[in-house]
Amino acid sequence: MLVKKSIKKFLDELASKSPAPGGGSIAALSGAEAAGLVSMVCRLTIGRKKYVKVQKEIKKILRTSEKLRKELIKLIDEDAQAYNQVVKAFKLLGGLDIEKALKCATEVPLETAENCKKVLELAVRVAKIGNKNALSDTKIAKLLAQAGIRAAILNVKVNLPLIKDKRFRKKVEKALQKIF
Amino acid sequence: MLVKKSIKKFLDELASKSPAPGGGSIAALSGAEAAGLVSMVCRLTIGRKKYVKVQKEIKKILRTSEKLRKELIKLIDEDAQAYNQVVKAFKLLGGLDIEKALKCATEVPLETAENCKKVLELAVRVAKIGNKNALSDTKIAKLLAQAGIRAAILNVKVNLPLIKDKRFRKKVEKALQKIF
Repeated sequence: MLVKKSIKKFLDELASKSPAPGGGSIAALSGAEAAGLVSMVCRLTIGRKKYVKVQKEIKKILRTSEKLRKELIKLIDEDAQAYNQVVKAFKLLGGLDIEKALKCATEVPLETAENCKKVLELAVRVAKIGNKNALSDTKIAKLLAQAGIRAAILNVKVNLPLIKDKRFRKKVEKALQKIF
Repeated sequence: MLVKKSIKKFLDELASKSPAPGGGSIAALSGAEAAGLVSMVCRLTIGRKKYVKVQKEIKKILRTSEKLRKELIKLIDEDAQAYNQVVKAFKLLGGLDIEKALKCATEVPLETAENCKKVLELAVRVAKIGNKNALSDTKIAKLLAQAGIRAAILNVKVNLPLIKDKRFRKKVEKALQKIF
């Protein structure tokens, strides 16, 4: 698993000639970092007298950001696996398997983009109601969530035109429109 | 060292109540990810017949991106240490030590921003001359380098007004202007 590797080792593998992990895993990692920052600012808000009125909402946001962080951590590995399946299908197998692998390599970054969008919405809210001493962290969470959305969408758009199934393509295009 | 921790563990610490690692380390990590993607695309360009004319330049870019990646990896830890020194100085010590700690906590993100800017310039060039099959990875490198610049500058701007030394402040403001 990529996420069990050290940061240094993961970055070494990223920089290597092997195309996975690549941009798709980095999109998911950006989203996970953004969710981590949101959770941190929530925890720096919980139990503080100055923020007594927002405690219930902040606790709810924390639960959601931690759920999204876990999802995005999973997607770091899923993206690399999806890419490897595409390469394998092109090398070894026939048309149907390529289509299946490409669909997976489209759905994974789409899910990453959707999760990053949710993290962005949480960050926007926490910037308003959360601990003001950590405002720069909340702003950085927004930057990373936005980068994650854009990066993931780039990967969706690379694979989408290669898929033959028109209905699938339309479904994904509709989902993309909802994100922007 | 933070960068020797697994990605999962690092993200857990990020999400914790402890303010370090925070946005500053994430800025440096974004830059290191961007540099990693630039290096990957360089390696996917080296030795390819189609890109025979740019081999020398791509090899030079790879050397620079790997140097920047190492610098940015160091800055992930240095930012957390700088923040912890500020907290320590405020808790235990007198005015001069606070000033010193704040200067360090300003210089570290400034260096991060400068390195991210250099990575961005490499990514822009590689998008033009590098392997076109990895164009989405180069674009994602640009997104991450930009996020790293903005995130690091946010942290510089948080600490700068707290520093008394006018000459230092002017020097940093001048350096910031060069980045944008």
